[in-house]
Amino acid sequence: MLSKSQISLLTSLQHKKFRREHGLFIVEGHKSIAEFVESHYQIDTIFHTYGNSPKLLKLSQKINFQEISLNDLQKISSLKTPADIIATIKVPQLTVSEPMNLKNKFSLVLDGIQDPGNMGTIIRTADWFGITNVICSEDSVDAYNPKVVQATMGSLARINISYTDLDDLLSHVNLPVFGALLNGQNIYTTNFGTEGLIIMGNEGNGIRPSVQQLVTKAVTIPRIGNAESLNVAIATAIFCSEAAGKSYK
Amino acid sequence: MLSKSQISLLTSLQHKKFRREHGLFIVEGHKSIAEFVESHYQIDTIFHTYGNSPKLLKLSQKINFQEISLNDLQKISSLKTPADIIATIKVPQLTVSEPMNLKNKFSLVLDGIQDPGNMGTIIRTADWFGITNVICSEDSVDAYNPKVVQATMGSLARINISYTDLDDLLSHVNLPVFGALLNGQNIYTTNFGTEGLIIMGNEGNGIRPSVQQLVTKAVTIPRIGNAESLNVAIATAIFCSEAAGKSYK
Repeated sequence: MLSKSQISLLTSLQHKKFRREHGLFIVEGHKSIAEFVESHYQIDTIFHTYGNSPKLLKLSQKINFQEISLNDLQKISSLKTPADIIATIKVPQLTVSEPMNLKNKFSLVLDGIQDPGNMGTIIRTADWFGITNVICSEDSVDAYNPKVVQATMGSLARINISYTDLDDLLSHVNLPVFGALLNGQNIYTTNFGTEGLIIMGNEGNGIRPSVQQLVTKAVTIPRIGNAESLNVAIATAIFCSEAAGKSYK
Repeated sequence: MLSKSQISLLTSLQHKKFRREHGLFIVEGHKSIAEFVESHYQIDTIFHTYGNSPKLLKLSQKINFQEISLNDLQKISSLKTPADIIATIKVPQLTVSEPMNLKNKFSLVLDGIQDPGNMGTIIRTADWFGITNVICSEDSVDAYNPKVVQATMGSLARINISYTDLDDLLSHVNLPVFGALLNGQNIYTTNFGTEGLIIMGNEGNGIRPSVQQLVTKAVTIPRIGNAESLNVAIATAIFCSEAAGKSYK
């Protein structure tokens, strides 16, 4: 049984402000939670309905379990059809000071992505293509937003997400900086080499001008038909496919 | 001003049953409506708020215009933030008997796609890559669903959508039939040639067994990282990119 104050805390985690304040976010569903249990994330509590304890999880860490009613579970879920288990997980400390290892690999850089579905799908796609770093501008949507978590289908557990000032980051890296821009080189004739940052811009406005100035190679997905633009998660996938997918032979 | 029965009819168009019954669907927003006005679709009525008539549309056909209040517009919109113009457009007659021209080009075949956002994004992506035919199994989500229309960003106006029995279609075509399947040939070493059907399966279950049997070449996007699967709209985009995008040099 959940107390009123627990319900209030748990539902508050739908909002970024309270995720920051409590250092927690919510993951729903057995499969996704299992991915976090096996990751470097620290699980706070797993809430499950009576008699429905998640036995199948390989527990490599000590976790609090709490049995709750279906009614309470529905109260704390953000889904129309809630799963039967929900976990609170600790938001990792952002280690901006600790330089990420960006050498000898491709990393994604997201400049102002706003739509949670797009962010989640991008994280899932990065995970498919073995891209482990996703670096976001500070005004990008929060990766611990429940809609993002849901759309990543568990991949969030495996990807290093960081939020940072892109102007600052890009002026200090010594790597190729590929930018998804209009009027760049045809992506199908671009040699991505074996490392670099791939910058994708905001849904409506693309890459902001100050970041564009730090791009070393503008790259374009040629349009054959008539659509005005591609969805940003789709464009990101084609960049991942061309840069990282091709390395698989 | 809209009558009660008009509001009732217009809001009923959110549901497939009533779109079928009235032969109409709804498109919202100036930009998308303009794409339909310039297409082969027949516009029924354009509803716009008072004093806000859409002058910029190049009208190649006779269209009814009706001025309505913002309040009425909000009632008939399916969007949280309605655009200031909404059109009713005639659902094209499905010409299943008339054989589509499938030679010398790539066409997409969707086997049971359920999510409106995925369907819309696939139509938009097809339009970008110059793929003009999207053939859906009869149990796929309706392309005139408001969420699909919205996600296509106007591309629906340019793509030929048809719903048909895939087993029947595939057993009568004399073309390569590529299927997105596990354990197929690596997509990056597949020669797609210059024509064929590309089959993408349902979000959870993939391509149904009877349709799988009619695939002539199973093709796989190799997984480099750890995600369990790719979103179907993302996988479709990578197929479009490899089959059709590459033809652009």
